[in-house]
Amino acid sequence: MRTVSWDAARNEVRLIDQRRLPGRFEVLSYTQPNELAAAIRDMVVRGAPAIGITAAYGLALAACQSQASNLEDLRSDLTLAGDVLAASRPTAVNLFWAIKHMLALAAQPVDSPEELRALLIFEAEKMADEDVAINRQMALYGAALIEDGDTIIHHCNPGALAAVDWGTALGCIRMAHEQGKHVHVLVDETRPRLQGSRLTAWELSQYGIPYDIIADNAAGYFLRSGQVQKVMFGSDRVAANGDVANKIGSYMLALAAHANDVPVYAVMPSSTVDLSLSSGDLIPIEERAGSEVLNLLVGGESAAPEGAKARNPAFDVTPHTLITALVTEKGVVYPPFKTHLPRVLGKQEGL
Amino acid sequence: MRTVSWDAARNEVRLIDQRRLPGRFEVLSYTQPNELAAAIRDMVVRGAPAIGITAAYGLALAACQSQASNLEDLRSDLTLAGDVLAASRPTAVNLFWAIKHMLALAAQPVDSPEELRALLIFEAEKMADEDVAINRQMALYGAALIEDGDTIIHHCNPGALAAVDWGTALGCIRMAHEQGKHVHVLVDETRPRLQGSRLTAWELSQYGIPYDIIADNAAGYFLRSGQVQKVMFGSDRVAANGDVANKIGSYMLALAAHANDVPVYAVMPSSTVDLSLSSGDLIPIEERAGSEVLNLLVGGESAAPEGAKARNPAFDVTPHTLITALVTEKGVVYPPFKTHLPRVLGKQEGL
Repeated sequence: MRTVSWDAARNEVRLIDQRRLPGRFEVLSYTQPNELAAAIRDMVVRGAPAIGITAAYGLALAACQSQASNLEDLRSDLTLAGDVLAASRPTAVNLFWAIKHMLALAAQPVDSPEELRALLIFEAEKMADEDVAINRQMALYGAALIEDGDTIIHHCNPGALAAVDWGTALGCIRMAHEQGKHVHVLVDETRPRLQGSRLTAWELSQYGIPYDIIADNAAGYFLRSGQVQKVMFGSDRVAANGDVANKIGSYMLALAAHANDVPVYAVMPSSTVDLSLSSGDLIPIEERAGSEVLNLLVGGESAAPEGAKARNPAFDVTPHTLITALVTEKGVVYPPFKTHLPRVLGKQEGL
Repeated sequence: MRTVSWDAARNEVRLIDQRRLPGRFEVLSYTQPNELAAAIRDMVVRGAPAIGITAAYGLALAACQSQASNLEDLRSDLTLAGDVLAASRPTAVNLFWAIKHMLALAAQPVDSPEELRALLIFEAEKMADEDVAINRQMALYGAALIEDGDTIIHHCNPGALAAVDWGTALGCIRMAHEQGKHVHVLVDETRPRLQGSRLTAWELSQYGIPYDIIADNAAGYFLRSGQVQKVMFGSDRVAANGDVANKIGSYMLALAAHANDVPVYAVMPSSTVDLSLSSGDLIPIEERAGSEVLNLLVGGESAAPEGAKARNPAFDVTPHTLITALVTEKGVVYPPFKTHLPRVLGKQEGL
C-alpha cells in the first residue's frame, strides 16, 4: 500500500497515519484540503516527497470539493487551497514545488470546471506514479554506491513512508539488499519525533534488513571506532551550492562522518533541489512546539521537570563541504555542486 | 542534602535515587557493599565524582559489615568488596582511584580491626568533604571563563547530583550565576538516559537559572546559527594527552562546537585524569543494555517495532584537538595537554 493515495471512488485522499506506527497501522481518509494541511502539519504524513504528493492531491481534493460553477471561481478556490496547504510546513521545498506545478496546470485553458477537476486528479495521480518511478531510479543510483558488507548509519525516515513508495536514502539501502548485498543499518532513533526507531526500524524489519537502533548521540562513537562505511540521509531542500537541509541532527552526523573519512550521501529527487537559493543559509527552518521534546515518559513519569521549556528546530543545514555526493534520479552529483547540479538536473530522467 | 552521604548513627550509605528524578525525590539506604555496587551499575548514583565517593563509602560499609576479628581477615574482606565495587562500571576512573586510595589506607599499620573501621569511615567522610571543596574550586575556575550574557550548551548532568555537591561543568555555570552573570543554558536532553532533561533541568530550576531543553540532535543547529558562546561538559576519564571520555554524544557536540569556533571546556577533578593512559583510545568504553534505548513510549506504545535491537555505548572519547581547555580544581589547563597536565596536576590544590 502506498503512503499517500487517491480513492477514486470517493474522491478522498488516504494517508497511512505515521504517528501511530509501529504500534498500529491505520489509514486515514481526508475530504477537505484544510484537514489535509493539518495532517501535514501534525505529521500524519511526513517526508519531503510524500508531502509534495499529498499537496498535489490536496489541490485535486480542492477541485472536487469546490462548489464553483465557472472556471474563474474554481481557480480562485484552488489558489486559496494552495495557500492553506503551503502554510502547513516551511522547509521541504517539494510542498511548494507540487503546489506551483498544480496551480500552473490549473491556469491552462480548459473548457469547463469538470474538465479542470478531471485534469487535476489525473495530474496528481501521474505525479504519484512518477514519484515511485523517480524513487526507484534514485534507489538504483544509490545502491550502486553501497558495497557488500557495508554498515550504514541512517538518519530519520527517508523511506517508503516518506515518499509514495521506495523512498530516498532508505530506498537505496533496500535496493542494495534486493540486489543481494549484505548491509547492516545503524538506525539513528532521530529525536524528537523518533522517525528512525518508529518508522525506519519498522520498514527495515518488513524488508528483512538487519539493523540496530542507536541513540543519535552514539553515531560519533561508531564512526570514530571504524565500524561504519557510509552515512546516508534524505533531504528536505538542497540549495544551488549543494547545502542540504534535512531532519535535525543530519549536520552533526555529517560532521562526525567527515571527521572520520566516512562518505556522506544525501539522496533526494530533483524536485527537492531549489536552484533559486544560492546557499543553505537561505532555507527557512521550521521550529516546532517544544512539547515534542518534552513529552517523553520514563517509568510513567515526565522526563522533564514541571514548567520546563524546550527549543525544537525541526531541520538543520549540512554545508556542502561535508557532503560526498548528492544522489538524484538523474544521477549522482559530485562537487563542485554549484557547477554540476544544474548540469545533471537539466538532463532527462534516467539518462 | 548531599547526593551521597554516610549515616553515622546507622553505618549506612544514603543515595538520592537519580532514576526517579525529577518526578520523585527519594533517598535510598544501603548496608551491603554488593547492593551498593548494584546501585552504581543501575545508576541510582552516577557521575564520575559521585561514584568515586560512593565506592569509598562502600569500603567503609564493608569494614562495618565484616565479621572479621583480626586485621588480616578484615583486609581480605575489604579486598573482596573492592573487587565487587570495581566491577560495577568500567569507564569512570574515579571509581578505581577511590578504591585504590581506600585499600592503600587499609594496608597501613593499625592496632585493631576497630581502629581500621574507624579510620576508613573517617577517610571516606574526608574524601566526601574534599570532593565538595574540590568541586567548588573547579566551579570558581570555570565560572571565570563564562561571560555575562553567555548561552552555554551543556551535556549530561555533571552537576551536584554527579558529585557530592556542586558538580563539575554545571557547578561552573551555577557559580557564574551566583556571581551575578546572566547565563542561559541549552540543556542537551542526553539520550538514552536523559540525564539532561531529568537531572540538569531539575538542578537548573532549583538554582533559578534560565534554560531550554533541546534534543541532542539540535546542538549543531544552535552552534552553527551563532546562538551559543560556550560548550561545557564533565568527564569520566581524561588520558595523558588530554583526550576526554565522557557521556555518549560529547564527541559529536565537541565536533560541532569546534567547526563553529565555539570553545569547548571539559571540567573534572584531578582524580578523573588518568596519566597512566597515553591516549583516550585506551579508555574502556562501557556498552550498556539496548533496552535503555528501546524503552521509550510514545502515546503509550513502544517507539520501536517488536523484536528491535539496539546498540548502547554509554561513553565516547573526544579527541584533545577539539578541547579548548580542561578545568580542574588545580587550574585551567590549555594545550598542549601532554606537557601542561602533569605540571598543573602536580601543584597543590588551589594554588
